[in-house]
Amino acid sequence: MLPRTMADYSVYELLNKKRRGGPLDAAEIEFFIDGFTKSAIPEYQMSALLMAIAINGMTAPEMATLTQSMLRSGEQWHLRDSYDYFADKHSTGGVGDKVSLVLSPWVAACGIKIGMLSGRGLGHTGGTLDKLEAIPGFNARLSRADFEKAVADCGCVISTSTEGIAPADKKIYALRDVTGTVESLPLITASIMSKKLAMGASALILDVKTGSGAFMRNYSDSKALAQSLIAAAAGSGTRVEALITDMDRPLGIAAGNANEIIETIECVKGKGPADVMEVTRAQAVRILAMSGRFDDASAGKALHDALTSGRALEQTRKWIAAQGGNPKIVDDYSLLPQPRTVIEVKAPRSGYITHMDTYQAGMFTVDLGAGRKKADDVIDYAAGVMFDKRSGDEVKAGEVIARIQLGAAARDERELVSRFLSFVEFGDDQPKARPLVHEHLT
Amino acid sequence: MLPRTMADYSVYELLNKKRRGGPLDAAEIEFFIDGFTKSAIPEYQMSALLMAIAINGMTAPEMATLTQSMLRSGEQWHLRDSYDYFADKHSTGGVGDKVSLVLSPWVAACGIKIGMLSGRGLGHTGGTLDKLEAIPGFNARLSRADFEKAVADCGCVISTSTEGIAPADKKIYALRDVTGTVESLPLITASIMSKKLAMGASALILDVKTGSGAFMRNYSDSKALAQSLIAAAAGSGTRVEALITDMDRPLGIAAGNANEIIETIECVKGKGPADVMEVTRAQAVRILAMSGRFDDASAGKALHDALTSGRALEQTRKWIAAQGGNPKIVDDYSLLPQPRTVIEVKAPRSGYITHMDTYQAGMFTVDLGAGRKKADDVIDYAAGVMFDKRSGDEVKAGEVIARIQLGAAARDERELVSRFLSFVEFGDDQPKARPLVHEHLT
Repeated sequence: MLPRTMADYSVYELLNKKRRGGPLDAAEIEFFIDGFTKSAIPEYQMSALLMAIAINGMTAPEMATLTQSMLRSGEQWHLRDSYDYFADKHSTGGVGDKVSLVLSPWVAACGIKIGMLSGRGLGHTGGTLDKLEAIPGFNARLSRADFEKAVADCGCVISTSTEGIAPADKKIYALRDVTGTVESLPLITASIMSKKLAMGASALILDVKTGSGAFMRNYSDSKALAQSLIAAAAGSGTRVEALITDMDRPLGIAAGNANEIIETIECVKGKGPADVMEVTRAQAVRILAMSGRFDDASAGKALHDALTSGRALEQTRKWIAAQGGNPKIVDDYSLLPQPRTVIEVKAPRSGYITHMDTYQAGMFTVDLGAGRKKADDVIDYAAGVMFDKRSGDEVKAGEVIARIQLGAAARDERELVSRFLSFVEFGDDQPKARPLVHEHLT
Repeated sequence: MLPRTMADYSVYELLNKKRRGGPLDAAEIEFFIDGFTKSAIPEYQMSALLMAIAINGMTAPEMATLTQSMLRSGEQWHLRDSYDYFADKHSTGGVGDKVSLVLSPWVAACGIKIGMLSGRGLGHTGGTLDKLEAIPGFNARLSRADFEKAVADCGCVISTSTEGIAPADKKIYALRDVTGTVESLPLITASIMSKKLAMGASALILDVKTGSGAFMRNYSDSKALAQSLIAAAAGSGTRVEALITDMDRPLGIAAGNANEIIETIECVKGKGPADVMEVTRAQAVRILAMSGRFDDASAGKALHDALTSGRALEQTRKWIAAQGGNPKIVDDYSLLPQPRTVIEVKAPRSGYITHMDTYQAGMFTVDLGAGRKKADDVIDYAAGVMFDKRSGDEVKAGEVIARIQLGAAARDERELVSRFLSFVEFGDDQPKARPLVHEHLT
């Protein structure tokens, strides 16, 4: 028999209420999250609540309370109290998404303090921290003190979330993972926002991806997620805006780790692919504008100047050095992990690439060793793909459309090429171009 | 971190499927119930499934599979293979519901073998086993061998469910009790029917109560439960029919334990209250008719003869003796536990009892010591209430409408009378009579 205590009785009533679809009030949600974090509420009751939330949903006030209860389970850094303005940025993840890497030194070069507690890659999307760890010496596991020191030293920092941030989220996520409750807008929202808001930035820009390589493929789902993430921040003290950006093809040419570092540096040198620059610039403008020190026009000019003057590049060197990395990689890409061999994929026909399933492109890249299918997989930083041609591009039969960069592991080259071509569609007509920035939500 | 194994992976997919509302197939349900019974599937995954079922419901085939998976978790007695015809009966419970006690010797006196694995009282309803245990010496905890011996000796038996019957139900019920998933038609159905069908009777008559003293107060809920219970037996080999009977006032005059044994014996002597006789006869007719040896008319005649000939009374003596009880109580009620004192409740005005909240009447009886609010409460067999006047009866101011029979515990008599009157409504007009047997479902 399971023990039944007074605490169980309250939990039982709350579970009945949520099962019937009724919203829980703030005290009830706080009681549940606090109790579960302290192990006073057992997993079998939490999993019942998670399933009830996953099926019956949550109101916007419930989500905001859930998010804030989860963030209060751990440290709150209140960085907005330490700086006039402190910016944060979050992406829902995609293939070739190096926006955080380009954005950080770029806005820092405009005098904006920015820091992110970021994640590692899992599944088809890459992880910002994994990419940074391709840089020899780079330390992405900073203590809170080292995080703040890096901000003081150079104005920008990216590190893994520390143990103290939102422990409730770690416990809840582990349970969601084994109880079929991962797919739930309110639970996804609270998980993301509890970690982000715990830092206590002045402003947070959300890059919510949409398309075949996004967490939410469908536009209306992406928009609902963006709105939900913004709603969950109500009353938190952090100003949150979102851009819905395209992830129906890889962002930029490079997907992997070392190769994305190279592409990042090309971007801060002003030579990056147009799509990476456009998506990054849109977010950088919002970060500058939310500070109140810039309007859209002056933000655009400041960003342009930071790039053309070489300050963004210089900031990148300072940032890498501040986190222990070798800044010489900026001038000598051969200091980064190098692919053992490169396999060219050639167009089987002339015409247009009409579509590329970007989820498949991401999983392909992961399978090369560039990402993780399980949390304890080891990354091969040299492995990756260069998507020289992407959806909408014209190709000639026999022309190189991609370069598969192999890391340490031996692979069947013909099988790789064949698998690559399985997720690329060719046709005679150029497909309609998708906008890179779909919508701005506040 | 929670461990993740191959088994977890399957469970995770099943939980996702049920969360999305999709029906689980038979193998999936069997896998889940078998795994949980053997503790291969942990409570936190089972509670997530229970919540998903409680919210999203189950199809009739899912319910039948769930029921049969739960019954297969333990012993299956297959009694229909040992006897030409073996009958079973189940009631959803009510106040003053002594139908099983009257029915068993009555149909046995007509040559029908009948046996029930019954429950104890919890909450506002009494328990058949508790009532039987008011008889000095009566043993309601029979092994399977003793159960079958009692059938051989006298043709009827009522005992508590043994440990070996549907262990999955015990484990699942304990979890439902603390996870807010008690109120769920498919889970209620599977819980009831897994225990009943494990006995493997030839036929089972379900007495589904409706009204203010019933588990389902509302008629449409009662009917849905009856239909659900019948549907869950599909393919089980036990023929199941249901009668929806009235529980908007106590059944008979007596509610308690010893007092209900006295009323039971009055019934088998042919002197019982008309409502108890009508509800019991309706079920007894179905049990006789389902054997194929009687039609409705000959069943009615056989039951009439068993009563008027004294065979039903003689059968009652044999039955009590077969289960170790003192059969002399049939002729000498003073051998039963006696109330220490009796408090009369008098009508505060003349007119009609227009309604009595029978749930409250049941809870009142429980509070006297006649039932249990918690599973480990001790029963006072002498305590109870005689509802001399019930809904629809005409009363004169100052006339005795009820007698409160106190057991060992001292009580504030004025407070008891005042509380009793709080759930009885009086008026000038006789309320419309409710039928005793509402509907017969097959």
